[in-house]
Amino acid sequence: MKKVVVIGGGTGNFVVLRGLKNFPVDLSAIVSMADDGGSTGILRDEMGVLPPGDVRQCLVALSNSSRLMRSLMNYRFENGGLGGHSFGNLFLSVLEKVTGSFEKAVEEASKILNIKGKVIPITMNQVRLKMVLNNRKLLEGEQEIYLSQEIDQGYKSIYLEPYPKVNPCVINEIANADLLVIGPGGLHTSLIPNLLVEGVCEAICRSDAKKVFVVNLMNRKGQTTGFKTSHYLSEVVRYLGKDVFDYILLNGQKPPKTLIDVYSSEGDLVENDMDDPRVILAELLGTPAEVAKKDLLKRNLIRHDSKKLAQELMKIVDHL
Amino acid sequence: MKKVVVIGGGTGNFVVLRGLKNFPVDLSAIVSMADDGGSTGILRDEMGVLPPGDVRQCLVALSNSSRLMRSLMNYRFENGGLGGHSFGNLFLSVLEKVTGSFEKAVEEASKILNIKGKVIPITMNQVRLKMVLNNRKLLEGEQEIYLSQEIDQGYKSIYLEPYPKVNPCVINEIANADLLVIGPGGLHTSLIPNLLVEGVCEAICRSDAKKVFVVNLMNRKGQTTGFKTSHYLSEVVRYLGKDVFDYILLNGQKPPKTLIDVYSSEGDLVENDMDDPRVILAELLGTPAEVAKKDLLKRNLIRHDSKKLAQELMKIVDHL
Repeated sequence: MKKVVVIGGGTGNFVVLRGLKNFPVDLSAIVSMADDGGSTGILRDEMGVLPPGDVRQCLVALSNSSRLMRSLMNYRFENGGLGGHSFGNLFLSVLEKVTGSFEKAVEEASKILNIKGKVIPITMNQVRLKMVLNNRKLLEGEQEIYLSQEIDQGYKSIYLEPYPKVNPCVINEIANADLLVIGPGGLHTSLIPNLLVEGVCEAICRSDAKKVFVVNLMNRKGQTTGFKTSHYLSEVVRYLGKDVFDYILLNGQKPPKTLIDVYSSEGDLVENDMDDPRVILAELLGTPAEVAKKDLLKRNLIRHDSKKLAQELMKIVDHL
Repeated sequence: MKKVVVIGGGTGNFVVLRGLKNFPVDLSAIVSMADDGGSTGILRDEMGVLPPGDVRQCLVALSNSSRLMRSLMNYRFENGGLGGHSFGNLFLSVLEKVTGSFEKAVEEASKILNIKGKVIPITMNQVRLKMVLNNRKLLEGEQEIYLSQEIDQGYKSIYLEPYPKVNPCVINEIANADLLVIGPGGLHTSLIPNLLVEGVCEAICRSDAKKVFVVNLMNRKGQTTGFKTSHYLSEVVRYLGKDVFDYILLNGQKPPKTLIDVYSSEGDLVENDMDDPRVILAELLGTPAEVAKKDLLKRNLIRHDSKKLAQELMKIVDHL
């Protein structure tokens, strides 16, 4: 069975993992640990735990437990002091407190949720993501960066503080992978934070795995406005040190104009500007009907279809 | 296998169940649904759920799952908006929201926690416990009653509002029991609330089961100050309509004077005043060393030993 290692965080990771879960591959998810917004941010502050949010999403994506168990993990409290918290986040944070480490918490949660494959935090250090913009403004924390509308005006640096040690399992996973999948996901808030951890870029460059970069569907306004394939690629290559990708997978299907219009306040469609044999343009869109009923956020109206995305990745796996 | 049905709520129930769990009996716990204090009270108010606290304690007492799972269920958050909540309470309340009913939530939690026997809420109605004191003061809610220091001055009435329908399973359990165990537990806040539910007292009186009343170890100051066996018995009989008990089990062991002194601000030792062949005086005390390290609350310094209590109850079962 081929070993597929997915690197990312957030909902992008979720979509890839949920799709690949149904295929006969040995699956690992390497997850960013920079999240500090919402429920996760509150738990970090109040309980001193590591960020559970992205790990929870990956666990749910890979879970073979009952629908009930997955609904439980995704449940969000609405009111009062609990308002905004995800039950799954609380579950992971309490497991961390009770077992004494985030590593054991993820291990126990993986058993309880009966997951296929492995979920591996990129680091076990408490880190904060920071960014200095070209105008010398400092953005502190993943949430502040996520909400900024000035990033497309350029930034000087992005870094994790303190500079984190990589989780040693991550290096093994990358070294032993047959296919490495990077993306899709928030470029500065979910993907790059993985590349900022000590030794990760070197491990990726050194690995004999085939490497595929999955480009986002949509740009985020004020963050990646007007970005095309080449911009996404060069941003990631900037941290990797060289262009190691064997495949660049992106959507070539046009969403209905009405959806693009609704989405326009959030961002524009990513278009391909690269004439490169590595580029695979595929139909990767989820049907609007399917996505719309699940989630009424504008930015979720145009989404990858997890099945289609996994099928394209499996075409690559089948040729390994 | 003999069927033992324990009626109560709170920590009293926990001690009996934890002890009986290790014996070959068919065990059911019937649980009061009047709790509205602390974490449980907040969840009732903010989420509109039924009270999870007493059910959680019974589930943990009967759980055969890992020590980790039990620690998880008993974990209490310390700070911020989550401060004071028990993770197990959140778990039950979220299960109720996700499954759509408290009944299913208890059923699912029972599976997840791999419990021996059954935990059965006395009613599925949202109720509040109320009490009118002799001075015509109204105490609203279990928590207010629990904290009152005036109850030993006498009360006119105690009732659940609205008058609740009994959970039909409860009537079956009582009818089919070989042994019914009532108590120990907070007299007005954990025991009597079960007897205030429609049809419960009739079912107890009608049942062919042998019936044992387990009297509390200690009185609660301002609530049952100076109560002896006969006072406990007559309070319960007042609701049952007649004295149906075959056995009255209470502790006959004297705690060390130092512990009694420390406890004295919370309440005094219950002494036996009944010359009745039904009374069984047994050594039921937990060793202070064992209890002290677990819990530093004064009122927890003198406690039943779950093993000794279960052994006495099993002597009765063995004679059935």
